[in-house]
Amino acid sequence: MDRRTLVEQIRKKQSYLCIGLDTDSTKIPKHLLDAPDPVFEFNRQIIDNTKDLCVAYKINTAFYESRGVKGWDSLERTVDHIPDNILRIADAKRGDIGNTSAQYAKTFFETYHFDAVTVAPYMGADSVKPFLDYKDKWTILLGLTSNTGASDFELQQMGDERLFEKVLRTAAGWGSADNLMFVVGATQADEFTAIRKLVPDHFLLVPGVGAQGGSLKDISEKAMNRDIGLLVNASRTIIYASDTVYFAEEARAIAQQYQFEMKEYLK
Amino acid sequence: MDRRTLVEQIRKKQSYLCIGLDTDSTKIPKHLLDAPDPVFEFNRQIIDNTKDLCVAYKINTAFYESRGVKGWDSLERTVDHIPDNILRIADAKRGDIGNTSAQYAKTFFETYHFDAVTVAPYMGADSVKPFLDYKDKWTILLGLTSNTGASDFELQQMGDERLFEKVLRTAAGWGSADNLMFVVGATQADEFTAIRKLVPDHFLLVPGVGAQGGSLKDISEKAMNRDIGLLVNASRTIIYASDTVYFAEEARAIAQQYQFEMKEYLK
Repeated sequence: MDRRTLVEQIRKKQSYLCIGLDTDSTKIPKHLLDAPDPVFEFNRQIIDNTKDLCVAYKINTAFYESRGVKGWDSLERTVDHIPDNILRIADAKRGDIGNTSAQYAKTFFETYHFDAVTVAPYMGADSVKPFLDYKDKWTILLGLTSNTGASDFELQQMGDERLFEKVLRTAAGWGSADNLMFVVGATQADEFTAIRKLVPDHFLLVPGVGAQGGSLKDISEKAMNRDIGLLVNASRTIIYASDTVYFAEEARAIAQQYQFEMKEYLK
Repeated sequence: MDRRTLVEQIRKKQSYLCIGLDTDSTKIPKHLLDAPDPVFEFNRQIIDNTKDLCVAYKINTAFYESRGVKGWDSLERTVDHIPDNILRIADAKRGDIGNTSAQYAKTFFETYHFDAVTVAPYMGADSVKPFLDYKDKWTILLGLTSNTGASDFELQQMGDERLFEKVLRTAAGWGSADNLMFVVGATQADEFTAIRKLVPDHFLLVPGVGAQGGSLKDISEKAMNRDIGLLVNASRTIIYASDTVYFAEEARAIAQQYQFEMKEYLK
């Protein structure tokens, strides 16, 4: 999916919501466990009930990988069920030397039909570039994450900036606002104004709203750019809104609340 | 596998060789392509012909993931074929917020029977600790990698040390020399003496010998500690030594050269 299409979808749906499918097979409603693939059945109903309210789904691969081959089957069915006009993000946080990163890029962009993959920056340019080589695909590089461990390295001073700022500034030159986004956690709301000065045009993927406590209002006020430039992710607050047979309708209700709020900020 | 067993195996085999199974399905000898699982058949023959010469096998998961479910099947068969007295390393470079890293730890330590997994440090303590919670399993944290991109962030100054030094010093306190190793690339030979001052007791996993040009002699002289403390990895130079029907014997011949050389340095 190219940038123009993504921005069009945001304006059309009046939403920059990304729904995180961190689907834990031990947390899905009991009545689904008799389905041939309970995790896919859960995801299918979530997608069918929310696809008009969001512009992206983010599949957290760890929750699928931990179930082995059955998990990868659920992942494949899920990504193939997402409509083409919605961005399909593999939240996989890969990154390795060039010939290995090329294999990871192949995994998510060719073997599975994702539009975007999250990548860790630690190993530098040649570990990221194989992902950027794909046309109309997105590399979403970790910048400042939402967890407490962000203070260990990301927030530490490196010369006259902090590590995550150096990552944003340096990596912005490896790609463009058309193929590179950055992860910035919603729990880091104080940082968004400064981050927008470093990367004014790039999309930011913002996890940490909801269960992790970040504020949608704060982020939207501080980080929106002229092309919106935001994908705000919520996972657990939406997909685990209820564990009854009405889980998908309850998930829709929460997603709808986010979309209503986003519509306000888009005015 | 605990540290005592690993050190015993090194002394018994007179080897600290790790063989990297970066098995690319497009690079294996043609005569194997008729086997039900050509990648496993290749790995099986490599393992059967080298298992007395090495103390670890490192499976680069990217080369398996890129083949989808078939690749994970090959990976599972391969790890299950490695004898119990040899360290089974998943070179997966994972790392995410705590609840997600816990899923990755489960993937490699429970769903698949690995003894160790490589982890990226960028996201800090809570992204690494779920791996360290497993008894008799190893977390192998990226320190200073062998690729050119190491200069982008890892080698940049952070206060009075460089980022990779801060990672080694900080992370050493998250685990112990009994459950935590560090990746230090063989191409960074000048750094080994200083690194040993920072982490005198930890094992170092050293990729980059062979195809990437690092010197086994340099590393062994500078980085060996009283418990040896080294696992030196070679991948492509061993497994792709030949593409004939004798590929496994040729791989053995190269592995034997490394082991002969290591035996000298162990004196």
